[in-house]
Amino acid sequence: MKCVVVDYNATANIYARPVEGVVMVVDLDRMAIIGYRDRAVFMVPKAEGTDYRADKVGPPFTGPAAPPGVVVQPDGRGFHVHGHLVKWANWEFHVGFDMRAGTVISLASVNDTDAGGLQRRVLYRGFVSEIFVPYMDPEEEWYFHTFTDAGEYGLGALASQLQRGADCPANAVYMDGYYAGSDGKPVKAEDVICLFERYAGDVAWRHTNGIGLGGLFSEVRPDVTLVVRMVVTVGNYDYTLDSEFKTVGSIKIVVSLSGILEMKAINYTHVDQIREDTHGTLITENTIGVYHDHFVTYHLDLDIDGTRNSFIKNNIVPKRNTGVRATGGAPTPRRSYWTVLYEVAETEAEGQVNINSAPADLLFVNPSKKTKIGNEVGYRLIPTGATATSLLADDDYPERRASYTKKQVWVTPYNKSEKWTSGLYAEQSTGDDNLAAWSKRNRSIKDEDIVLWYTVGLHHVPYQEDFPVMPTISGALEVRPSNFFERNPLIRTKPPENSPNCSCSIGGSA
Amino acid sequence: MKCVVVDYNATANIYARPVEGVVMVVDLDRMAIIGYRDRAVFMVPKAEGTDYRADKVGPPFTGPAAPPGVVVQPDGRGFHVHGHLVKWANWEFHVGFDMRAGTVISLASVNDTDAGGLQRRVLYRGFVSEIFVPYMDPEEEWYFHTFTDAGEYGLGALASQLQRGADCPANAVYMDGYYAGSDGKPVKAEDVICLFERYAGDVAWRHTNGIGLGGLFSEVRPDVTLVVRMVVTVGNYDYTLDSEFKTVGSIKIVVSLSGILEMKAINYTHVDQIREDTHGTLITENTIGVYHDHFVTYHLDLDIDGTRNSFIKNNIVPKRNTGVRATGGAPTPRRSYWTVLYEVAETEAEGQVNINSAPADLLFVNPSKKTKIGNEVGYRLIPTGATATSLLADDDYPERRASYTKKQVWVTPYNKSEKWTSGLYAEQSTGDDNLAAWSKRNRSIKDEDIVLWYTVGLHHVPYQEDFPVMPTISGALEVRPSNFFERNPLIRTKPPENSPNCSCSIGGSA
Repeated sequence: MKCVVVDYNATANIYARPVEGVVMVVDLDRMAIIGYRDRAVFMVPKAEGTDYRADKVGPPFTGPAAPPGVVVQPDGRGFHVHGHLVKWANWEFHVGFDMRAGTVISLASVNDTDAGGLQRRVLYRGFVSEIFVPYMDPEEEWYFHTFTDAGEYGLGALASQLQRGADCPANAVYMDGYYAGSDGKPVKAEDVICLFERYAGDVAWRHTNGIGLGGLFSEVRPDVTLVVRMVVTVGNYDYTLDSEFKTVGSIKIVVSLSGILEMKAINYTHVDQIREDTHGTLITENTIGVYHDHFVTYHLDLDIDGTRNSFIKNNIVPKRNTGVRATGGAPTPRRSYWTVLYEVAETEAEGQVNINSAPADLLFVNPSKKTKIGNEVGYRLIPTGATATSLLADDDYPERRASYTKKQVWVTPYNKSEKWTSGLYAEQSTGDDNLAAWSKRNRSIKDEDIVLWYTVGLHHVPYQEDFPVMPTISGALEVRPSNFFERNPLIRTKPPENSPNCSCSIGGSA
Repeated sequence: MKCVVVDYNATANIYARPVEGVVMVVDLDRMAIIGYRDRAVFMVPKAEGTDYRADKVGPPFTGPAAPPGVVVQPDGRGFHVHGHLVKWANWEFHVGFDMRAGTVISLASVNDTDAGGLQRRVLYRGFVSEIFVPYMDPEEEWYFHTFTDAGEYGLGALASQLQRGADCPANAVYMDGYYAGSDGKPVKAEDVICLFERYAGDVAWRHTNGIGLGGLFSEVRPDVTLVVRMVVTVGNYDYTLDSEFKTVGSIKIVVSLSGILEMKAINYTHVDQIREDTHGTLITENTIGVYHDHFVTYHLDLDIDGTRNSFIKNNIVPKRNTGVRATGGAPTPRRSYWTVLYEVAETEAEGQVNINSAPADLLFVNPSKKTKIGNEVGYRLIPTGATATSLLADDDYPERRASYTKKQVWVTPYNKSEKWTSGLYAEQSTGDDNLAAWSKRNRSIKDEDIVLWYTVGLHHVPYQEDFPVMPTISGALEVRPSNFFERNPLIRTKPPENSPNCSCSIGGSA
């Protein structure tokens, strides 16, 4: 194993003061250093300004702050946890924990009150399959910084104990995780999952009417969601990984990145001194924040109203108005419009999509279930930012193991051995057991038990604000009912009551 | 003016029962019908299931619901409103109101506590310039449904009175808007703007440390933001338009769509009966939800730390490892990486970007202001979903007036006559006075007072859930400090205190 050297005598920020230019190779079986290379000498960045612990930066605490606020639920929480089964509003699901994936959501189903309270399956199992983080410096001390966080370290093993009132709000409930340690004994990971109802001030649906029956009125339904959260700290980076359940039937998956940059020492103290490509940004004196990517890949075994599903591309394509009704046109001044071309993905090759290449609604439908008026019941994918794909060359070693990062969307038939997108053994993998390799068989994905693999991707160009700890940045995806229900499932939801009056005290009762 | 006919005797949903096939032309000067065309006869959809008023759908209210929850701020609100000036945490800005644009944010500046409390300008003025909504049916009754909502109707004039505890949470403060009515007299628009602090359970920054100085510890700072909200109901659609200020220095702009689809009557009651392109989705019996787009264009006159700014494209480009340090490579097994190519946009032609075409960080910098280590101070643009661009043909009439919708990003030099992206007179405009026309002059935008025009775009394929009122769907953009501050401005922010205990009652005191 390759090791780099840092000086952390004067700061708790162990990434801020690299002893650049030195790499050691350690034989883990012999626990011996078998290689040592001191290529070049660089200034070690100063310790001042690198620490971020509260008692080192204050008092006084001069940073901007909002006053304390707390979500109060006068009637108590709306969700119930029975062991690992969670029930909330129209949702039921199971929360599990895995050493490699961390939180696993399974058997998620939504209640259809318009269909007599039928519980309808949405997700068989969903989890983070891999987080691939390649750095963009080809230098000796850096070229191998191409991490597969789940496969090499384990997201469950690195899940952080959540800080009450900080990582999760005051109305959260916490769950522990258990897994088998490297010695085979059970490990209890305390408070690694939290669940809370999110009152973010959003609106579920609304309309203001002006004329006709009823005259001027507004109907508004505020949105409340249920968040299942885990935080994984993989060395320098902290990933807050949320699964957010919405009463409208959506599951929104949010990846939020914070933590500390991997930094490279350099002799420059000012941008004007730099002539060459430093493969990163000078973020403070003698310190480069190295360019890198984050690719967080989800395994989402959707079971839309049953096991056998199809993947549909509703391609949104421009049309010229022919002026002739028989061909979809009309004899009007309008010259163009767009329409939807329905395409069923037959095999895996057709299940791979770069979502930035052409507009389409991507759906997962159950072809054997129709709404009363004949639409296939389905859910659609809504990417929400962070849609970067890998720019590495296909023949480059890190890309070979993570070649699936060239597209955000892959769809495969379910296979119980295909859980880990960089392969079962990600460490030193060569790409012969990854998602792209499996998909080369080009199996049928039509009317099968299919799996969506979705990658949230970010190219990360560091900025000075990312130092010494970076502010959170997020990317997300949502799967949303689309002809799954007969109509908006929230139309029969009660409007909000008057807000209660509340009084509070710290450490006592009101 | 062209008029269509609806039957709203049996429902408050005036869009659900069109008398399809009939169009009238009204002379507004004479207030007389001067044209009448009854092209074809279609079934009028049934009224049942179209109403959405609470007293028509219940009791019982069988829709899913979460329990009531309220944000309590034991020390009170953190923001102060002095007339139209708002001060909150590290932000100061002015909230105005305009008949055409609705809410106008101006003179927004952020406090730099690390620079001795200097108040630094970010945004001179920002507002919604236009909402362009073209429908995709070329038929006689539909081809002209290509709305420019701000220019034809006025977003301020159509701002809805916000519903307390529903449109905005209980801790919100409300503002009125004033504008000159069509008779010249002042109009008071009551409660059309709300401001509230958003406690959504997000994290501003965090890190868990495992080794070295300090050992195992976590530092976490929860995120609280300030939202300025307006809701505009333009006929059938409801746009919730948020400007969200973050202590990290970001302004996030969120567009949330709800309301009612424009519906077309059709004789079909089941999908299996359909053979031709209906230009929409059968969403209930005899009813097509017609395909359409939403393009919400913002005028953002950024003044990053001063008036004169430049627009930078930090292009993220793949590189082959040459193996030679003089050319940015290194003699290692790594074969590829990416780097950043810095490009200053010299003129307007270089300021037009389709953000889905190639990866880049897009920045607005002040070239005359540098950080201590020499980076240009700047803000970068972070698109967050809803990045659709227009698919209409360039020679089509609606596209000519809204030709700027082919790209999400345009940058122009400030010109006081260039406020309305579809032209001062949007009604019957022909494209000779719009953003694309102004930009043909290809003026210099380097080190000038420049304006960012950003379009949030959605192709809207309706689904049954969008009936009778559609669930909210959102798109957003964020401008975020990027080498604006010397470091993360929240490092010196105090960690959260213990959460208070609260008790509540409805309609009384605790």
